[in-house]
Amino acid sequence: MTENIQGLVIGSSAEFSKQITPENIATFAEITGDTQPLHTDPTFGIKTRFKKPIAHGMIGAGIISAAIGVNLAPGKVVVYLGQNMQFRAPVYPGDTITAVVEVTELDIERNRVSLSTKVNNQEGTEVIRGDALVMVEELQEDS
Amino acid sequence: MTENIQGLVIGSSAEFSKQITPENIATFAEITGDTQPLHTDPTFGIKTRFKKPIAHGMIGAGIISAAIGVNLAPGKVVVYLGQNMQFRAPVYPGDTITAVVEVTELDIERNRVSLSTKVNNQEGTEVIRGDALVMVEELQEDS
Repeated sequence: MTENIQGLVIGSSAEFSKQITPENIATFAEITGDTQPLHTDPTFGIKTRFKKPIAHGMIGAGIISAAIGVNLAPGKVVVYLGQNMQFRAPVYPGDTITAVVEVTELDIERNRVSLSTKVNNQEGTEVIRGDALVMVEELQEDS
Repeated sequence: MTENIQGLVIGSSAEFSKQITPENIATFAEITGDTQPLHTDPTFGIKTRFKKPIAHGMIGAGIISAAIGVNLAPGKVVVYLGQNMQFRAPVYPGDTITAVVEVTELDIERNRVSLSTKVNNQEGTEVIRGDALVMVEELQEDS
Protein backbone atom coordinates (compact mmCIF):
# COMPACT_ATOMS: atom_id res chain seq x y z
CA MET A 1 0.00 0.00 0.00
CA THR A 2 1.25 3.48 -0.82
CA GLU A 3 2.52 5.43 2.17
CA ASN A 4 -0.27 7.65 3.37
CA ILE A 5 -1.55 9.63 6.34
CA GLN A 6 -5.32 9.27 6.74
CA GLY A 7 -5.54 8.55 3.02
CA LEU A 8 -3.37 11.50 1.99
CA VAL A 9 -0.48 10.74 -0.36
CA ILE A 10 2.08 12.97 -2.04
CA GLY A 11 0.15 14.84 -4.73
CA SER A 12 -3.22 14.79 -2.91
CA SER A 13 -4.82 18.19 -3.30
CA ALA A 14 -7.80 20.30 -2.29
CA GLU A 15 -9.32 23.64 -3.26
CA PHE A 16 -11.57 26.23 -1.71
CA SER A 17 -13.07 29.32 -3.37
CA LYS A 18 -14.86 32.28 -1.88
CA GLN A 19 -15.91 35.77 -2.82
CA ILE A 20 -14.58 38.39 -0.39
CA THR A 21 -17.28 40.99 0.22
CA PRO A 22 -16.86 44.43 1.80
CA GLU A 23 -18.94 43.07 4.71
CA ASN A 24 -16.47 40.19 5.17
CA ILE A 25 -13.64 42.73 5.39
CA ALA A 26 -15.49 44.91 7.91
CA THR A 27 -16.32 41.87 10.05
CA PHE A 28 -12.75 40.55 9.87
CA ALA A 29 -11.54 43.96 11.11
CA GLU A 30 -13.92 43.66 14.06
CA ILE A 31 -12.97 40.08 15.01
CA THR A 32 -9.21 40.59 14.85
CA GLY A 33 -9.03 44.26 15.79
CA ASP A 34 -7.11 45.03 12.57
CA THR A 35 -8.97 48.23 11.78
CA GLN A 36 -6.19 49.74 9.63
CA PRO A 37 -8.16 52.13 7.33
CA LEU A 38 -6.31 50.73 4.28
CA HIS A 39 -8.83 47.88 4.48
CA THR A 40 -12.05 49.69 5.30
CA ASP A 41 -11.89 53.41 4.41
CA PRO A 42 -12.20 54.41 0.73
CA THR A 43 -10.98 57.97 1.49
CA PHE A 44 -7.78 56.47 2.91
CA GLY A 45 -7.49 53.78 0.24
CA ILE A 46 -7.50 56.32 -2.57
CA LYS A 47 -4.34 57.92 -1.14
CA THR A 48 -2.40 54.65 -1.39
CA ARG A 49 -0.72 52.88 -4.31
CA PHE A 50 -3.86 50.71 -4.58
CA LYS A 51 -6.25 53.67 -5.09
CA LYS A 52 -8.95 51.84 -3.10
CA PRO A 53 -9.27 49.60 -0.03
CA ILE A 54 -7.76 46.12 -0.15
CA ALA A 55 -8.68 43.04 1.88
CA HIS A 56 -6.57 42.00 4.84
CA GLY A 57 -3.90 39.52 3.75
CA MET A 58 -5.04 37.24 6.54
CA ILE A 59 -8.47 36.81 4.92
CA GLY A 60 -6.69 35.13 2.02
CA ALA A 61 -4.81 33.08 4.61
CA GLY A 62 -8.19 32.05 6.01
CA ILE A 63 -9.16 30.68 2.59
CA ILE A 64 -6.03 28.50 2.64
CA SER A 65 -7.10 27.38 6.11
CA ALA A 66 -10.54 26.48 4.70
CA ALA A 67 -9.06 24.40 1.87
CA ILE A 68 -6.91 22.54 4.38
CA GLY A 69 -9.41 22.31 7.24
CA VAL A 70 -12.56 21.52 5.29
CA ASN A 71 -11.66 19.91 1.96
CA LEU A 72 -8.30 18.15 2.39
CA ALA A 73 -9.34 15.42 4.83
CA PRO A 74 -13.05 15.69 5.67
CA GLY A 75 -14.01 14.03 8.95
CA LYS A 76 -10.40 13.94 10.17
CA VAL A 77 -8.78 16.25 12.70
CA VAL A 78 -6.51 18.67 10.86
CA VAL A 79 -4.29 20.74 13.15
CA TYR A 80 -2.30 23.68 11.74
CA LEU A 81 1.36 23.61 12.76
CA GLY A 82 2.79 26.19 10.40
CA GLN A 83 2.13 28.47 7.45
CA ASN A 84 4.57 30.57 5.42
CA MET A 85 3.12 33.13 3.03
CA GLN A 86 4.16 35.75 0.55
CA PHE A 87 1.40 38.22 -0.28
CA ARG A 88 2.08 38.86 -3.96
CA ALA A 89 -0.88 40.93 -5.15
CA PRO A 90 -3.78 42.74 -3.49
CA VAL A 91 -7.25 41.22 -3.02
CA TYR A 92 -9.99 43.79 -3.61
CA PRO A 93 -13.51 43.76 -2.16
CA GLY A 94 -15.67 41.68 -4.51
CA ASP A 95 -12.79 39.46 -5.72
CA THR A 96 -13.34 35.71 -5.72
CA ILE A 97 -10.21 33.93 -4.59
CA THR A 98 -9.32 30.25 -4.80
CA ALA A 99 -6.85 28.44 -2.57
CA VAL A 100 -5.17 25.32 -3.95
CA VAL A 101 -3.18 23.13 -1.59
CA GLU A 102 -1.14 20.05 -2.53
CA VAL A 103 0.67 17.50 -0.40
CA THR A 104 4.45 17.67 -0.96
CA GLU A 105 5.80 15.57 1.91
CA LEU A 106 4.62 13.06 4.53
CA ASP A 107 6.15 12.41 7.97
CA ILE A 108 4.41 9.12 8.68
CA GLU A 109 5.82 8.71 12.19
CA ARG A 110 4.45 12.03 13.42
CA ASN A 111 1.32 12.27 11.22
CA ARG A 112 2.66 15.46 9.66
CA VAL A 113 1.78 16.58 6.18
CA SER A 114 3.61 19.34 4.25
CA LEU A 115 1.70 21.24 1.58
CA SER A 116 2.29 23.85 -1.08
CA THR A 117 -0.35 26.58 -0.76
CA LYS A 118 -1.38 29.02 -3.47
CA VAL A 119 -4.22 31.51 -3.77
CA ASN A 120 -5.33 32.99 -7.10
CA ASN A 121 -7.95 35.61 -7.88
CA GLN A 122 -10.70 35.30 -10.52
CA GLU A 123 -8.29 36.55 -13.19
CA GLY A 124 -5.73 33.87 -12.42
CA THR A 125 -3.32 36.29 -10.71
CA GLU A 126 -1.44 34.66 -7.86
CA VAL A 127 -2.21 36.66 -4.71
CA ILE A 128 -0.56 34.39 -2.12
CA ARG A 129 2.18 31.77 -2.42
CA GLY A 130 3.53 29.65 0.41
CA ASP A 131 3.65 26.34 2.21
CA ALA A 132 2.02 24.77 5.23
CA LEU A 133 2.61 22.04 7.81
CA VAL A 134 -0.35 20.26 9.41
CA MET A 135 -0.97 17.22 11.61
CA VAL A 136 -3.79 14.95 10.42
CA GLU A 137 -5.36 12.51 12.87
CA GLU A 138 -8.34 10.23 13.30
CA LEU A 139 -11.09 11.24 15.71
CA GLN A 140 -10.54 9.47 19.03
CA GLU A 141 -13.09 6.90 20.16
CA ASP A 142 -15.49 7.86 22.93
CA SER A 143 -13.78 7.16 26.24
CA MET B 1 19.73 60.87 11.96
CA THR B 2 19.26 57.19 12.63
CA GLU B 3 18.23 55.20 9.59
CA ASN B 4 14.48 54.84 9.70
CA ILE B 5 11.39 54.11 7.59
CA GLN B 6 8.50 56.38 8.53
CA GLY B 7 10.02 56.73 12.00
CA LEU B 8 10.57 52.99 12.49
CA VAL B 9 14.07 51.94 13.56
CA ILE B 10 15.52 48.53 14.44
CA GLY B 11 14.02 47.65 17.81
CA SER B 12 10.77 49.61 17.31
CA SER B 13 7.92 47.48 18.60
CA ALA B 14 4.15 47.30 18.95
CA GLU B 15 1.60 45.13 20.72
CA PHE B 16 -2.03 44.21 20.34
CA SER B 17 -4.19 42.16 22.75
CA LYS B 18 -7.63 40.69 22.29
CA GLN B 19 -9.89 38.15 23.90
CA ILE B 20 -11.06 35.48 21.43
CA THR B 21 -14.72 34.69 22.10
CA PRO B 22 -16.71 31.69 20.83
CA GLU B 23 -18.68 34.21 18.73
CA ASN B 24 -15.44 35.46 17.12
CA ILE B 25 -14.60 31.88 16.18
CA ALA B 26 -18.06 31.20 14.71
CA THR B 27 -17.91 34.45 12.70
CA PHE B 28 -14.37 33.73 11.46
CA ALA B 29 -15.61 30.33 10.23
CA GLU B 30 -18.37 32.11 8.31
CA ILE B 31 -16.15 34.78 6.73
CA THR B 32 -13.40 32.42 5.60
CA GLY B 33 -15.46 29.28 5.03
CA ASP B 34 -13.20 27.32 7.41
CA THR B 35 -16.01 25.44 9.13
CA GLN B 36 -13.83 22.52 10.31
CA PRO B 37 -15.78 21.25 13.37
CA LEU B 38 -12.53 21.20 15.41
CA HIS B 39 -13.13 24.94 15.84
CA THR B 40 -16.85 25.10 16.40
CA ASP B 41 -18.33 21.75 17.55
CA PRO B 42 -17.74 20.67 21.18
CA THR B 43 -18.89 17.08 20.41
CA PHE B 44 -16.11 16.90 17.78
CA GLY B 45 -13.57 18.78 19.89
CA ILE B 46 -13.87 16.31 22.76
CA LYS B 47 -12.72 13.49 20.47
CA THR B 48 -9.44 15.27 19.68
CA ARG B 49 -6.17 15.65 21.61
CA PHE B 50 -7.44 19.06 22.76
CA LYS B 51 -10.63 17.71 24.38
CA LYS B 52 -12.53 20.83 23.31
CA PRO B 53 -12.75 23.22 20.37
CA ILE B 54 -9.73 25.42 19.57
CA ALA B 55 -9.62 28.74 17.71
CA HIS B 56 -8.48 28.84 14.10
CA GLY B 57 -4.73 29.50 13.92
CA MET B 58 -5.47 32.30 11.49
CA ILE B 59 -7.35 34.25 14.17
CA GLY B 60 -4.06 34.48 16.06
CA ALA B 61 -2.48 35.54 12.79
CA GLY B 62 -5.10 38.29 12.59
CA ILE B 63 -3.95 39.61 15.96
CA ILE B 64 -0.39 39.88 14.58
CA SER B 65 -1.90 41.73 11.61
CA ALA B 66 -3.63 44.11 14.05
CA ALA B 67 -0.40 44.85 15.96
CA ILE B 68 1.33 45.61 12.65
CA GLY B 69 -1.55 47.35 10.87
CA VAL B 70 -2.90 49.45 13.73
CA ASN B 71 -0.18 50.03 16.33
CA LEU B 72 3.20 49.87 14.56
CA ALA B 73 2.90 52.98 12.38
CA PRO B 74 -0.44 54.72 12.96
CA GLY B 75 -1.52 56.96 10.08
CA LYS B 76 0.91 55.32 7.66
CA VAL B 77 0.11 52.78 4.96
CA VAL B 78 1.30 49.36 6.11
CA VAL B 79 1.16 46.69 3.40
CA TYR B 80 1.74 43.03 4.30
CA LEU B 81 4.28 41.33 2.03
CA GLY B 82 4.90 38.14 3.99
CA GLN B 83 4.29 36.24 7.20
CA ASN B 84 5.86 33.00 8.43
CA MET B 85 4.28 31.30 11.42
CA GLN B 86 4.65 28.29 13.63
CA PHE B 87 1.52 27.49 15.61
CA ARG B 88 3.03 26.23 18.87
CA ALA B 89 0.08 25.85 21.24
CA PRO B 90 -3.72 25.95 20.92
CA VAL B 91 -5.82 29.06 21.56
CA TYR B 92 -9.07 28.20 23.35
CA PRO B 93 -12.33 30.17 23.24
CA GLY B 94 -12.12 32.81 25.99
CA ASP B 95 -8.31 33.11 25.86
CA THR B 96 -6.82 36.59 25.68
CA ILE B 97 -3.86 36.64 23.33
CA THR B 98 -1.22 39.31 22.82
CA ALA B 99 0.85 39.81 19.70
CA VAL B 100 4.25 41.48 20.06
CA VAL B 101 6.08 42.58 16.92
CA GLU B 102 9.58 44.09 16.76
CA VAL B 103 11.54 45.56 13.87
CA THR B 104 14.60 43.43 13.07
CA GLU B 105 15.71 44.83 9.71
CA LEU B 106 15.13 47.84 7.43
CA ASP B 107 15.42 47.96 3.65
CA ILE B 108 15.50 51.73 3.25
CA GLU B 109 15.55 51.72 -0.54
CA ARG B 110 12.37 49.69 -0.86
CA ASN B 111 10.58 50.88 2.32
CA ARG B 112 10.54 47.31 3.61
CA VAL B 113 10.52 46.44 7.29
CA SER B 114 11.24 42.96 8.70
CA LEU B 115 9.74 42.03 12.06
CA SER B 116 9.81 39.25 14.60
CA THR B 117 6.24 38.29 15.51
CA LYS B 118 5.15 36.44 18.65
CA VAL B 119 1.77 35.72 20.18
CA ASN B 120 1.33 34.70 23.84
CA ASN B 121 -1.79 33.72 25.76
CA GLN B 122 -2.84 35.10 29.14
CA GLU B 123 -0.63 32.54 30.90
CA GLY B 124 2.46 33.61 28.98
CA THR B 125 2.50 30.49 26.79
CA GLU B 126 3.81 31.21 23.30
CA VAL B 127 1.05 30.21 20.86
CA ILE B 128 2.59 31.58 17.63
CA ARG B 129 6.16 32.39 16.67
CA GLY B 130 7.29 33.80 13.36
CA ASP B 131 8.42 36.74 11.31
CA ALA B 132 6.88 39.24 8.91
CA LEU B 133 7.82 41.52 6.04
CA VAL B 134 5.84 44.71 5.40
CA MET B 135 6.12 47.85 3.29
CA VAL B 136 5.50 51.11 5.16
CA GLU B 137 4.63 54.24 3.20
CA GLU B 138 3.31 57.74 3.63
CA LEU B 139 -0.21 58.53 2.47
CA GLN B 140 -0.08 60.12 -0.98
CA GLU B 141 -1.15 63.72 -1.39
CA ASP B 142 -4.50 64.39 -3.01
CA SER B 143 -4.00 64.43 -6.76
